[in-house]
Amino acid sequence: MSSERPRPPASPTISEVAAAAGVGRATVARSLGNYGSVSEATRSHVLAVAARLGYRVNSLARSMTTGVTKTLGVVLADVANPFFAGVLRGLSDAAKQEGYDILVLSTNEELSEEKAAVGLLLDKQVDGLIVASAATRNDDLAHLQAVRERGVPIVLIDRLLAGFDADSVVINNREAAREAVATLIEAGHTRIGFVWGPVTVQPAEDLEAMRSVLDGALWSDGERLRGYLDALADADLEFDTSLVTHVIKTETQATRAVSGMLALAEPPTAFFTTETDATVGTLRALRNRRLRCPDDVSLLGFDDTPWADVMEPPLSMVAQPMRDVGARAAELLIARIHGGDDEPLVHEVLPAQMVERGSVRKRKPTLLPR
Amino acid sequence: MSSERPRPPASPTISEVAAAAGVGRATVARSLGNYGSVSEATRSHVLAVAARLGYRVNSLARSMTTGVTKTLGVVLADVANPFFAGVLRGLSDAAKQEGYDILVLSTNEELSEEKAAVGLLLDKQVDGLIVASAATRNDDLAHLQAVRERGVPIVLIDRLLAGFDADSVVINNREAAREAVATLIEAGHTRIGFVWGPVTVQPAEDLEAMRSVLDGALWSDGERLRGYLDALADADLEFDTSLVTHVIKTETQATRAVSGMLALAEPPTAFFTTETDATVGTLRALRNRRLRCPDDVSLLGFDDTPWADVMEPPLSMVAQPMRDVGARAAELLIARIHGGDDEPLVHEVLPAQMVERGSVRKRKPTLLPR
Repeated sequence: MSSERPRPPASPTISEVAAAAGVGRATVARSLGNYGSVSEATRSHVLAVAARLGYRVNSLARSMTTGVTKTLGVVLADVANPFFAGVLRGLSDAAKQEGYDILVLSTNEELSEEKAAVGLLLDKQVDGLIVASAATRNDDLAHLQAVRERGVPIVLIDRLLAGFDADSVVINNREAAREAVATLIEAGHTRIGFVWGPVTVQPAEDLEAMRSVLDGALWSDGERLRGYLDALADADLEFDTSLVTHVIKTETQATRAVSGMLALAEPPTAFFTTETDATVGTLRALRNRRLRCPDDVSLLGFDDTPWADVMEPPLSMVAQPMRDVGARAAELLIARIHGGDDEPLVHEVLPAQMVERGSVRKRKPTLLPR
Repeated sequence: MSSERPRPPASPTISEVAAAAGVGRATVARSLGNYGSVSEATRSHVLAVAARLGYRVNSLARSMTTGVTKTLGVVLADVANPFFAGVLRGLSDAAKQEGYDILVLSTNEELSEEKAAVGLLLDKQVDGLIVASAATRNDDLAHLQAVRERGVPIVLIDRLLAGFDADSVVINNREAAREAVATLIEAGHTRIGFVWGPVTVQPAEDLEAMRSVLDGALWSDGERLRGYLDALADADLEFDTSLVTHVIKTETQATRAVSGMLALAEPPTAFFTTETDATVGTLRALRNRRLRCPDDVSLLGFDDTPWADVMEPPLSMVAQPMRDVGARAAELLIARIHGGDDEPLVHEVLPAQMVERGSVRKRKPTLLPR
């Protein structure tokens, strides 16, 4: 590959426009930026020359004049996750409604990529940021603090951050998980697999250890596991650490972890899954062992997707108001851009909705095939 | 909502750095940009002052010095489509490998949004663009011509454009569709529904009319329908226009169109679907009529997704090399940015792969339940 060639100028410079128009640079800048003292005749002349030369008023030039670029930066943990794709759609529609463009970056759940993404979006002069952070409770949040110090507002979505308070839009993860697990318990299930829990080197030994692991987890992960623990406690069921995965979060790992649970002396008779990849990985483990849902094993999980109701059986799912999360975040951010820092922070919690279909069944008294 | 407040300056200006360092603005610019004649001592002093004041070298400042921003713009037709999510992952990984950032915009398959997206990315000074265009053969491509005229390279992905030749990465849509439909024909199916065809007000009356409709269609849509027509012709099967949808492309419309086909006097016994929403919409229509796949109706379609093999039955699918499409596009674009316009255009065609599972079955001699 040859060395980098200098790119042809993207559009004529202000100096070139000035030369062609026979006026000074300041006059060109004032005419293009529509500020300061320039006669209408001169302004018209400069604009005509600029148009003839193909001068393009770029967003930076606009921002130098007005202080705003009408662009929002969006940092998502994983755009390939249908949840974030739905959030993005809602966000994009709402931003457009208000005349804002959006720039999107996906971090693959890597904090290092998030830091780079935030830096890039600041470089691109966004007016504000919407962030679904990959940071856990123990991570360094200096990159977000730096954004605030520059006066650029941030709205957090999907995940709160213990060390960084900002406007936020999340769902009621803990209550939604509690309700879902309670549904499984009401159907007679007492051994309920949780896919997936926080990533740890080895399972937490007991409830206390699990609670301390939770303190270092991604907020939404932690909340869903807390909801699971709540439901068990409500029903006086004992927590069994071997029923919670502690793996790297990939579909393949979910399959492996669930296969391990199914090989226990007392395997789970139901699973609660916390996102799409976890659900698919769990279904694959059931298929590999020729277990049928819901005849042999019940399943209930996040997130509802178009596929869920054409499955056999149609899957009962917790549906997040994805588009609403995105739309509200855009609205809050734009309000903050216009309104400044004086208004109190807004924390919105949108309710998830359980959609019952056909994947939960009353527990059979017989043992599972092994 | 109150009026827009001026944002606090994002970082000190060059003038402020110059004042604090006790040197001229040109010296600051040369020191920060690392060009021109400045003594090492002065440069160090300026950099130290700039760092103390929180000066941030933004991408525009970099680009003014080097002519490059190391940022690629990506315009996708629909980021919520799992295909594009996969493309984005491949693209993002390959760009990162080469030290490039990417900025992504999704157009919801709207040409007007595509034009706005291209404009925004040019404003943000990207070094090149990767575009999955929403333009059909009859649409105006002035927005892409304008990019070229500014010397910013473009790589087309997923869809070629009749009126705009550029480096491109696509899959072999026509051959892949032909092979898939031939598989259904080999299983004895002679009435094969095609979901979905080009959007038209009413179905094309015959093969000739359909061919002329194709000329105005999105390239990939057209190619897949051509592959379907090829397979029919290979097997001497007559084209029946009532077996091709002609609807707005939503999952709900697919369900409705397929329901209509199933109500025909001679309903299809198999379906070929051209993307995820078409597949889900078709499955929903089958479910609504209590038809079972593959017992009653066979199905084969684009795209392979994680869900496909945990369905009952596991779905036979055409798998596109999504990540490779994205990765190759990033590589081609970066090569073009470095290499300039002198090298001949590169047109890459990556092969799709048919993954046979359990959704195609030999046609039963009996009539379908009606």
